[in-house]
Amino acid sequence: TQYHRTRVCLHPLTVRRQNFKQISAPTDGLDRLRSLLQLCVDRHYVSPGETNADLFQRGLSCSYGPLGMELRRNLLEQWWHSVTTGRARGQVFGISTLNISQVERAADGLRLVECDHIKQILDRQESKEEIIQEIKMLLERSPTVRTNLLTGALQQLVPLLELVNRKLPFGLAETGLCFQPSAGSGCSAEVTQTSLVWFCSPRTSSQWLDHWTRQRLKWWKKFALSPSDFSSSEVPEQELEGAASRGVRILYNFPWGSETLETLWSRGNAELLHVHKGARSKLQCRDGQKSVPHVVWISGNMDRGVMAFLSNSLQQLKREEGRQKLQQRKVLKLHPVLAPVKVALNIGRGGTMELRQVCGGLLQEFVEAKIFTWPGYLETVPTSAEQQIAKYDEMGVLFSVVISDTTLENGLVQVRSRDTTIRETMHISEIRKFLSRYISAAENI
Amino acid sequence: TQYHRTRVCLHPLTVRRQNFKQISAPTDGLDRLRSLLQLCVDRHYVSPGETNADLFQRGLSCSYGPLGMELRRNLLEQWWHSVTTGRARGQVFGISTLNISQVERAADGLRLVECDHIKQILDRQESKEEIIQEIKMLLERSPTVRTNLLTGALQQLVPLLELVNRKLPFGLAETGLCFQPSAGSGCSAEVTQTSLVWFCSPRTSSQWLDHWTRQRLKWWKKFALSPSDFSSSEVPEQELEGAASRGVRILYNFPWGSETLETLWSRGNAELLHVHKGARSKLQCRDGQKSVPHVVWISGNMDRGVMAFLSNSLQQLKREEGRQKLQQRKVLKLHPVLAPVKVALNIGRGGTMELRQVCGGLLQEFVEAKIFTWPGYLETVPTSAEQQIAKYDEMGVLFSVVISDTTLENGLVQVRSRDTTIRETMHISEIRKFLSRYISAAENI
Repeated sequence: TQYHRTRVCLHPLTVRRQNFKQISAPTDGLDRLRSLLQLCVDRHYVSPGETNADLFQRGLSCSYGPLGMELRRNLLEQWWHSVTTGRARGQVFGISTLNISQVERAADGLRLVECDHIKQILDRQESKEEIIQEIKMLLERSPTVRTNLLTGALQQLVPLLELVNRKLPFGLAETGLCFQPSAGSGCSAEVTQTSLVWFCSPRTSSQWLDHWTRQRLKWWKKFALSPSDFSSSEVPEQELEGAASRGVRILYNFPWGSETLETLWSRGNAELLHVHKGARSKLQCRDGQKSVPHVVWISGNMDRGVMAFLSNSLQQLKREEGRQKLQQRKVLKLHPVLAPVKVALNIGRGGTMELRQVCGGLLQEFVEAKIFTWPGYLETVPTSAEQQIAKYDEMGVLFSVVISDTTLENGLVQVRSRDTTIRETMHISEIRKFLSRYISAAENI
Repeated sequence: TQYHRTRVCLHPLTVRRQNFKQISAPTDGLDRLRSLLQLCVDRHYVSPGETNADLFQRGLSCSYGPLGMELRRNLLEQWWHSVTTGRARGQVFGISTLNISQVERAADGLRLVECDHIKQILDRQESKEEIIQEIKMLLERSPTVRTNLLTGALQQLVPLLELVNRKLPFGLAETGLCFQPSAGSGCSAEVTQTSLVWFCSPRTSSQWLDHWTRQRLKWWKKFALSPSDFSSSEVPEQELEGAASRGVRILYNFPWGSETLETLWSRGNAELLHVHKGARSKLQCRDGQKSVPHVVWISGNMDRGVMAFLSNSLQQLKREEGRQKLQQRKVLKLHPVLAPVKVALNIGRGGTMELRQVCGGLLQEFVEAKIFTWPGYLETVPTSAEQQIAKYDEMGVLFSVVISDTTLENGLVQVRSRDTTIRETMHISEIRKFLSRYISAAENI
């Protein structure tokens, strides 16, 4: 078993990449997509339904099942950790701004309207002009919903400038739901966005854009099975939005083409001045020249991020079985830190009350250590060990543990690794530590 | 120092309650509210502004500063942990449903409308009847936003029934943004809700309601400085909503009266059948009688939860100083698990480069252990040690650490506890472990 232990304990990413190169085979893009969508529904990453699959595929928020919810949660947590903890660059503060805002201005954009109020106006016995007038006024009074997290952060800047004593650079981080107006299709949508608004001195903004591009690309690649699918590309001048003087996109190469996961903009300070009605003195910082800070804005779409990592980590293996059967096996090789389920607990031969109790104890131990555990031993439909493993591989479960009669005798359990497919024997008292170490080793690469 | 150590290591809650009884004095309710709001703005719990303070006070989502954001985050995490990990009761799965939904039906409720589309209709040269007709159609096609998390969970039930092999009880947990229609005031709002939808056999639903009421009340009280401000109360029959046959409210006794933090409803299965258009066979469970599960729904408002814990933990102390000055000191005695900032790092006499480096190293160590740390040593405005401590107490910082010249000599640092106000000397290599132990001891009470 010493030999096995060593192999399982290999650097997690090394193992994953090795395997991938050895056995993955290119398949047709659309086939791959269909296969991925089916797996995501079957294994409770996304909820069933065509409309839902369509949202998911388009990189929008969809209805997630338990595994998809947990994957997005892990992804958001990693994002948060990575942008807020690198204090060497400057402090980053988390904020939470409002989704809806009450701005009375020409009725445009996406607004939250109470239909009953509009119907009341329409049902009144008034002239056409009066109705038009009243509806326009109602729309103006209705709150707008946010389409990004930038404006909210710019509005919150002043008290936080005091907090850092007007010292640059520093950043404001936020994650949350944003709405997206329909592009002609008539159907608005929602997206889980991440936003880091970085305030820096004017002369350094381009360097910071480069710095953050490197950081962010490194972050995406860190969790990838096939890192070369992630890339960055400068936004062409004619596609620069609004106040932006430079932009960079982080792209993922989906089977059907490249899509943007995250965008980095160097936006100057025009928007900041606009939000604060030109009150320069409130915004000036202590960088020698008392300048109004420039803004570098990094905005990500984490629903598309979920889709990218699922797509990136799906391995379809063709394997010849003993009896010459060609089997297709799918493995979701999600990064150990992102994988929703870290370990599954099962009962081998026997299935007695006693074994269940052992599983229950182990489950409690894992749960307290915040290791997401799948209680396979509670399942009541009988399946073969082989079928169960195939299911766990599709779910992306990192390890599966089998408790059997021998465990009661000598405390030994079987632990099977998703990435090496090797089964090793371990003492029951060692598993929690082993799992924690494995995951944190993968986190700190 | 052994003596000091023992006192600081006392059971955290014991210490907090002791102190409270000794020195708190009753103050007028409105004064207390004003004082709390001021502190929340000054110490970056909520963003400044009257409208924002008003939202905060009404138990609605407001714009949170870094500390408020972190407090709500901690609260949501604790909620999640408490409802999803008690597997003895039955499994609980996390889900994430959509905020907006496309339901074509009579135009009512809160809808997301693209104003440009309405304006185009209004600006057309058409008859009044045509305009009315078109606006009604547009409203019907516009997506509705959710006002609670129940419907989404009921819609997602079927695939998850398969997952648990139709075995009851089990639950679906979700947290997220919901919108609230204006009650006449013309101003819609947003709220961060928690939801546990618990599916159980019909004959057990009332027992489950009682079970969850006890659990939830215990949870709220667990984090309270003054637990008696949290209570539960049966909803009177005439106030039962919709399908509910029984309801219980968890209340917090604010200085201005009681408000509901969480509501537990026993709702039968009428809504579930309605959502699934009466398809009983899809919903039947294996509880002997093949019955359609009953729903117990537990719905909380975590923005009001934040307000309740802030209100509950603010202690205003009157203290006589040596020179007969009467000083008012405010301490935010948030539970160790909820307190946003666990530790602040400061430099004592001689703010040299070397001391800063020591702080930087310590900061890195804490951050990696996921202990939220306040880098006080980076502040550039000179303040007295006394002022700094007063500020940290208002922020609710659990411990403050002072690194000084002696630290460079013998590795010793001063650690001051918010709750005991005792300063003790500790070796620098011990602090991280001490903090982690202190927090997890408080978590596992």
